[in-house]
Order: sequence, then C-alpha cells, then structure tokens
Amino acid sequence: MQEFYLKRIRQLEPCALVETKVAQGLEDRYAERIKEIEAKNLEKHLEDDYIICLSDEGKEMSSKDFARLLEKRSLNSPGTTFVVGGFAGLAERITRRGDFLLSLSRLTYSHELCRVVLLEQIYRALTIMKGKHYAK
Amino acid sequence: MQEFYLKRIRQLEPCALVETKVAQGLEDRYAERIKEIEAKNLEKHLEDDYIICLSDEGKEMSSKDFARLLEKRSLNSPGTTFVVGGFAGLAERITRRGDFLLSLSRLTYSHELCRVVLLEQIYRALTIMKGKHYAK
Repeated sequence: MQEFYLKRIRQLEPCALVETKVAQGLEDRYAERIKEIEAKNLEKHLEDDYIICLSDEGKEMSSKDFARLLEKRSLNSPGTTFVVGGFAGLAERITRRGDFLLSLSRLTYSHELCRVVLLEQIYRALTIMKGKHYAK
Repeated sequence: MQEFYLKRIRQLEPCALVETKVAQGLEDRYAERIKEIEAKNLEKHLEDDYIICLSDEGKEMSSKDFARLLEKRSLNSPGTTFVVGGFAGLAERITRRGDFLLSLSRLTYSHELCRVVLLEQIYRALTIMKGKHYAK
C-alpha cells in the first residue's frame, strides 16, 4: 500500500522515502535510549527543509487544510521533510527541530500505518493542489 | 495490509469481512443514487448487531476509548458490525440506523484506507482488551 501511494505521488512531485535504522532488541523501558539512537540516525537526513514531525501532540487538521499547508510550503524552497518516529516515537530534540507538528488522528496508529496514512494524505493534498480528481 | 490485520484479528476473535457491491459507472453528481443503491446492498447484511458506522460527522476517540467501547459491546451479544461507505459515503438512512457514528480522523481517507485503519484499530483494541503487547 505504501508503494501504491509513493508511485502516485512521484507522478506529481519528486519524493524520496528514507528509512533510518531502527534501534532493535531494546525493551520498552529503554524507550529514551531507543529514541536517542534513532534521533542520531534521523539527524543525518535533516537538511534545511521545512520539517513536519508526526506527533500525537501535533495539530489535527482536515485534508484541505493540510493541502493548504503544503501549498504554502511549495512556494518556498527548498522542500518539505516529514519525520515519522518508530515504535517509541520521536526524541524531544527532533520534535523541537520540527517546524510543524502534525497529528493524523486521535487514534494511535502503528508507525507502519502512520506512513501509509501520511503518504495517502500527501497524495491527496497534491491532487487537491493540482485540481485533480481523487476520492473524497 | 488489510489481510495482515484481518489475520491477526481472527487469531483473537471471529471476524467476517463482507464487501457489498459498489455502484459503479455513476458519476459524482449522482452521489445520492450511488448511496441509495449501496444502501440496499448493505441493508441485506445488517442484522441485530450493534452497528458502528464510519462517518466524518462521527465521534473521534483515542484508541483506549475505542477499546473501552468495544469491550462494553462484547459483554452484550450478539455482535458488532462496522459499516464503511464507498466513494460517496453512506446513505443517511444507514447512518441513522447506526448505534454509534465513529470518525477515524479529521483527515479524509479513501474508503480503502478507512478499512485498513479500522482493522488496525480493531486489532489494537483487542490487544488492549486482552492485555497483549502491541505497538504503542
């Protein structure tokens, strides 16, 4: 499903999916350490882009408002980077670096599902921005 | 992805996925007719279950509250039916028949994605109810 939306997005805009190393084998109670290790890997990929971090403390918005946010961003280079945390979420220093915190839902999604939902929303936003026909 | 969550749900509870006929070939402006045709097909499958309709006018909730809702339901037979509309959404008479209207997000999802998100949430709710370990 991820590939399905990625392919569609790429028909409209260049888009790179970067998967950083997941800190494995560490238990739940080491959540802070997991986030720290993952933060180091994430930071290598954070450039001067506008950074949108997925966070359950982020702002919930409608698909239209999300499209508006991306449209505003697209007028300003260089680009937009979305950061999705792993099992334990994102380290605080990553969310602090984010220009915008976005929440996809009040429901908690697995990070795999977050990725799919986010990709679908990016595709949906691009179709809204470009006036294309897509599922309501 | 749908199969992935269905399989996991079925390891915990019986679950049937019923796909009714989609009204095809009708244009957007015939949304009411589409919903009407689809409602007729849906009604054949609505039994005495507790009916939860997905609707953008529904209640948003956390995964924990969703689990609590399902837990309460599981104490009462016969069962719970979730109704996900098609491209045009659900006819009003279907949502009126629903005992509960649920919204997955302020974002608009395609109905394919709705299904996946809903299945993941049902699986998550079951793991919460049964005290199983699953992604936060």
